[in-house]
Amino acid sequence: MSFSYGERFRVTLFGQSHAPVVGVVIDGLPAGIELDMDAIRDFLSRRAPGGALTTARREADVPEILSGLVDGHTCGAPIAAVIRNTDAHSEDYAGYLDTPRPSHADYAAFLKHGEAHDIRGGGYFSARLTAALCFAGAVAIQVLSRRGVAVGAHLYSVADVKDEPFDPVNVTEADFKRVRANALPVCNNDIAPAMRRVIEEARAAKDSVGGVIEGAATGLPGGLGEPPFDGVENVLCRVLFAIPALRGVEFGAGFAASAMRGSRHNDPFLYDNGVVKTRTNNHGGALGGLTSGMPLLFRAAFKPTPSIGLTQDTVDLNAKANTQLTIHGRHDPCVALRAVPCVEAAAAIALLDMML
Amino acid sequence: MSFSYGERFRVTLFGQSHAPVVGVVIDGLPAGIELDMDAIRDFLSRRAPGGALTTARREADVPEILSGLVDGHTCGAPIAAVIRNTDAHSEDYAGYLDTPRPSHADYAAFLKHGEAHDIRGGGYFSARLTAALCFAGAVAIQVLSRRGVAVGAHLYSVADVKDEPFDPVNVTEADFKRVRANALPVCNNDIAPAMRRVIEEARAAKDSVGGVIEGAATGLPGGLGEPPFDGVENVLCRVLFAIPALRGVEFGAGFAASAMRGSRHNDPFLYDNGVVKTRTNNHGGALGGLTSGMPLLFRAAFKPTPSIGLTQDTVDLNAKANTQLTIHGRHDPCVALRAVPCVEAAAAIALLDMML
Amino acid sequence: MSFSYGERFRVTLFGQSHAPVVGVVIDGLPAGIELDMDAIRDFLSRRAPGGALTTARREADVPEILSGLVDGHTCGAPIAAVIRNTDAHSEDYAGYLDTPRPSHADYAAFLKHGEAHDIRGGGYFSARLTAALCFAGAVAIQVLSRRGVAVGAHLYSVADVKDEPFDPVNVTEADFKRVRANALPVCNNDIAPAMRRVIEEARAAKDSVGGVIEGAATGLPGGLGEPPFDGVENVLCRVLFAIPALRGVEFGAGFAASAMRGSRHNDPFLYDNGVVKTRTNNHGGALGGLTSGMPLLFRAAFKPTPSIGLTQDTVDLNAKANTQLTIHGRHDPCVALRAVPCVEAAAAIALLDMML
Amino acid sequence: MSFSYGERFRVTLFGQSHAPVVGVVIDGLPAGIELDMDAIRDFLSRRAPGGALTTARREADVPEILSGLVDGHTCGAPIAAVIRNTDAHSEDYAGYLDTPRPSHADYAAFLKHGEAHDIRGGGYFSARLTAALCFAGAVAIQVLSRRGVAVGAHLYSVADVKDEPFDPVNVTEADFKRVRANALPVCNNDIAPAMRRVIEEARAAKDSVGGVIEGAATGLPGGLGEPPFDGVENVLCRVLFAIPALRGVEFGAGFAASAMRGSRHNDPFLYDNGVVKTRTNNHGGALGGLTSGMPLLFRAAFKPTPSIGLTQDTVDLNAKANTQLTIHGRHDPCVALRAVPCVEAAAAIALLDMML
Repeated sequence: MSFSYGERFRVTLFGQSHAPVVGVVIDGLPAGIELDMDAIRDFLSRRAPGGALTTARREADVPEILSGLVDGHTCGAPIAAVIRNTDAHSEDYAGYLDTPRPSHADYAAFLKHGEAHDIRGGGYFSARLTAALCFAGAVAIQVLSRRGVAVGAHLYSVADVKDEPFDPVNVTEADFKRVRANALPVCNNDIAPAMRRVIEEARAAKDSVGGVIEGAATGLPGGLGEPPFDGVENVLCRVLFAIPALRGVEFGAGFAASAMRGSRHNDPFLYDNGVVKTRTNNHGGALGGLTSGMPLLFRAAFKPTPSIGLTQDTVDLNAKANTQLTIHGRHDPCVALRAVPCVEAAAAIALLDMML
Repeated sequence: MSFSYGERFRVTLFGQSHAPVVGVVIDGLPAGIELDMDAIRDFLSRRAPGGALTTARREADVPEILSGLVDGHTCGAPIAAVIRNTDAHSEDYAGYLDTPRPSHADYAAFLKHGEAHDIRGGGYFSARLTAALCFAGAVAIQVLSRRGVAVGAHLYSVADVKDEPFDPVNVTEADFKRVRANALPVCNNDIAPAMRRVIEEARAAKDSVGGVIEGAATGLPGGLGEPPFDGVENVLCRVLFAIPALRGVEFGAGFAASAMRGSRHNDPFLYDNGVVKTRTNNHGGALGGLTSGMPLLFRAAFKPTPSIGLTQDTVDLNAKANTQLTIHGRHDPCVALRAVPCVEAAAAIALLDMML
Repeated sequence: MSFSYGERFRVTLFGQSHAPVVGVVIDGLPAGIELDMDAIRDFLSRRAPGGALTTARREADVPEILSGLVDGHTCGAPIAAVIRNTDAHSEDYAGYLDTPRPSHADYAAFLKHGEAHDIRGGGYFSARLTAALCFAGAVAIQVLSRRGVAVGAHLYSVADVKDEPFDPVNVTEADFKRVRANALPVCNNDIAPAMRRVIEEARAAKDSVGGVIEGAATGLPGGLGEPPFDGVENVLCRVLFAIPALRGVEFGAGFAASAMRGSRHNDPFLYDNGVVKTRTNNHGGALGGLTSGMPLLFRAAFKPTPSIGLTQDTVDLNAKANTQLTIHGRHDPCVALRAVPCVEAAAAIALLDMML
Repeated sequence: MSFSYGERFRVTLFGQSHAPVVGVVIDGLPAGIELDMDAIRDFLSRRAPGGALTTARREADVPEILSGLVDGHTCGAPIAAVIRNTDAHSEDYAGYLDTPRPSHADYAAFLKHGEAHDIRGGGYFSARLTAALCFAGAVAIQVLSRRGVAVGAHLYSVADVKDEPFDPVNVTEADFKRVRANALPVCNNDIAPAMRRVIEEARAAKDSVGGVIEGAATGLPGGLGEPPFDGVENVLCRVLFAIPALRGVEFGAGFAASAMRGSRHNDPFLYDNGVVKTRTNNHGGALGGLTSGMPLLFRAAFKPTPSIGLTQDTVDLNAKANTQLTIHGRHDPCVALRAVPCVEAAAAIALLDMML
């Protein structure tokens, strides 16, 4: 359904990078839920640009509620919220419809929409829409929290600098909070300087770097998921790929599982204080498309920001000739950094839709 | 929608491993399309058990058409097809509801369905349902083929034995045919002996191994996909994860992209005989959730078969105590091997649904 | 989604009048529900041809279960069931693709599907598919029954012969049972002879008659429905119109409400033994798209069978000329008669999907 | 999906009567379509309150575009539009949660949403949301118009005063324009005084009246519709019932067909200047769930406005006792009057979704 997702917690996104707003309609929440707007604003501020490692675009990303709340409580009507686009420099993008930026959506969008594509700021392909996704995610996280489910993520790696992973068996909400309290969203603060350096070096070289985000959810009931087409992995992937620049998703041991033998990869069941658990968690909390009751664990790989300051080869679609392009717009040197709350938001949306 | 997928090419699966049949309903094909039933049977036979490297379960997997075809042509009504389950040994599975097999769906399915779960042969979690998926995929492949789209896959790796990848820029349908003609579905036949060996060694050790499958599609029009929630990656993942034992999916450079700089990962556009292409294909044919016109490229990581002959730790849910389990049923030592046509089928279903 | 309906109780139909089978896949039922197969067969027999007032086509309509049940209980996998087509006379239909029968789907289906349309017995437009709908409905009725909900219907009128309506305020399941026990599905057996006569007179005149069916559901919880697009009326209409020959649906006072003043149409609330009810039930149990707790009441108008023995004007699409046609196939003189269980089935499917 | 409708032309509504706005997100339109905003405003003004026969609530209903248009053209991103609620008197509604208004949604909404239901102005059950529906409908009408399809409606009856029906065989867009040009939306201006009188008499008596709207669409291609569950009647009903106060829908001869014999109801095919038509149009342009190429014809029955000035019996949910209620808010004496453009909008949304 393109801009809509969900059967019970239904999210519809709208907006473009340089439209008046980006926004979201959320339908399906029971009436009477109190929403903590401060927590939503805090969540959005984690995604908002700011700091030395992000784009120079400056926007406060304060959401405005258009419907669905009465005295801060859901009333059964859809929640509509918008976030104004206040720092758009449309003139920066004039030429990209004809000379598409390598590894951006420009050319593919031209093939789909023709000259009518809104190229300004990347139109609806812009990561700016993740502000609306994060609004929905922040709402989902609150509702999940009251059901005992916590969602968290951290920068698992940037280029070749690796953070410490979540403990696959014993990760808790406290770990998520610790990550959020850090200046860089990592588990092990000791690697923060190296991670900053690799990002700053890329920026200094007019270049960019990729990264991997690890996400987790705790407190999920077992048996959640509707395989084969709507198992927990299917739906998490479907929502995660709404985040631009994502190139891969893996669960539990993931790609590494392909090099293991079964005797090493299988997770033995055991009773732990009367509760069935697994000794290891190579399955990442998902078996047969269903949650197992163990922490849900996945990793999402982000490509390096396609916008770089170095001159690149491209084509001139008008002249039907090869040409070169130098991008002068504002951009993040590492999209994975600001994607951390987006990954949490996407996971929360997918999980809440399964739980309602 | 659980057992149904698609908005235009709509596939509904049914059946369990030890039900009378597994089957599929396909709705949405235009009337008047002639289906080549021999090609469908050939496709199913690639998935069917057989040969030294697969399970001892022996089933011919010949589909029976229940509706939707008149004189071999679609008539606008849904195509329903079933494949009979003829070699089911239900008694092998009696105890697994109480002592769940590690890394199988048994325990999670018990949490979802309770004692009523059909544990025989794994019930609907069985890879047996991929026979029905492959029927739908074989139909999709024929329809895609008439629109100039070809879909192929090969065993990219088993354990640490790696095949040669598809040429990301120049892969063609001829490469897919070459793979299919091989006894093992690989690009480079020279690695076949090593691949066989690593599988046979695992089986001899009462163990199993994982593997990675690379999939590709050529001839796709550019601009296909409905991001953010139904971009080409979203929907491919959603259908691929209908295949049991899948643990990760990546597109183009995938996880490796996370370690690259943008200047290395970006794919420069260029004119090649008047056609816009990219010099490299790290984007895997998908930009912004849309096809770019370059070959679509992805990899799917499969875990080692969870059924192994070695004794494993598990729990006795009745006794609420730890126990051990030795699996005696028939199983494949490497599920990735027979998953190759399943990956093609899943990709074809997803792509045709986007194209119709 | 064409042949599929539902988000929680998901029904997918397949088959054509002269395909090997008509069938249905039902997905979404919780595991562990025991189904009474005798009750399902009884329900199907109410729709099956038989008796002086129906078609000469003779089929037992015994369903065959292909998947989803273990020892008569649901197991979480989809239930697939088929009903064999055993008395098809395909040769009767040869010419109708070129000389379409007035007020049948023939011509419209030709516009949609071209020559590939399966004209035999009307293909998938045949009321034969309601056998599959009734299977799903019979299952839904059993599940609803355990939740205290009963669904019933009767022949409200045939031509100008009118039955007594259900008591809008006090109708109960006992009334539904009384109707089912009658030879003709009417509330007031005294009108049965007149109703029979008007049908037999039409048949004797090589003609047909229309009729209206009144449906009701009792025991529904209040507040059910998801307006504006999936309120109780929206979804009931959507499923009811899967029954061929339906021309209109109204709720409560329906079309008659348009001629009333509000003071007469409004239903005053009152406490009746501590329960909120309405004194009258002009609203038919649905207010604002939600159930009100009062009996749900609706009427469905069926046109006269389009197949009549009288010679009719039509066109010869080959010759592009006007021509005449005399239909010799077997047909019911009053489709409304056998549509009574279909209306119950459709209502049950819609209601259960809302309740699960 | 509750507040969302459509698979190709996807409409998501939001807002409540006394929220800051009512609004709509429209997803699925191809890029590059120029929208005539004046025509949209004109369409909305037909629904907006005004004149002696409507509510005293005064709102200009000027839509504000939040996204999806660049220089008045669609760009492939969803169109989001809002209409501000500027004349809300929330204090008028304070008590209706406890003493529900007869035949309003108040009580059913309380059962669904509890005390959190936004009772102000009826919340999301208010006909105010049809302003957003009409925005989407006005867009759909423009897109349909460029494909040769016209949609129109008129007040077929109010109480017992009947307009002249559309000519079922020969109705054209010119007829729709003539209706729109009239002060009252009727075909035969001679009946306008009687219709006004019956409305004004009801208002003077602190009462209300119901009415029937006839809708039609011309220029539709034949073969449109996806029966059995998404035939043209199914989907039209589903969208029409998003309009409050609707109690029934019929197609072609509708309920009257139930009293006819087949020989009278059947519409003979004939060639008319080389085009296949039917001599009569009792089928209302829909056969077997598919458009036939003849004008699509349906009637929608609206109940009298439930808000009346007369004192009514109701319950006090707090005191659990019977009580009385006198409504003092502003309201229309005949909702059918302003529902005429809503019926056009709903039909256009349903038809465009089928055609894209």
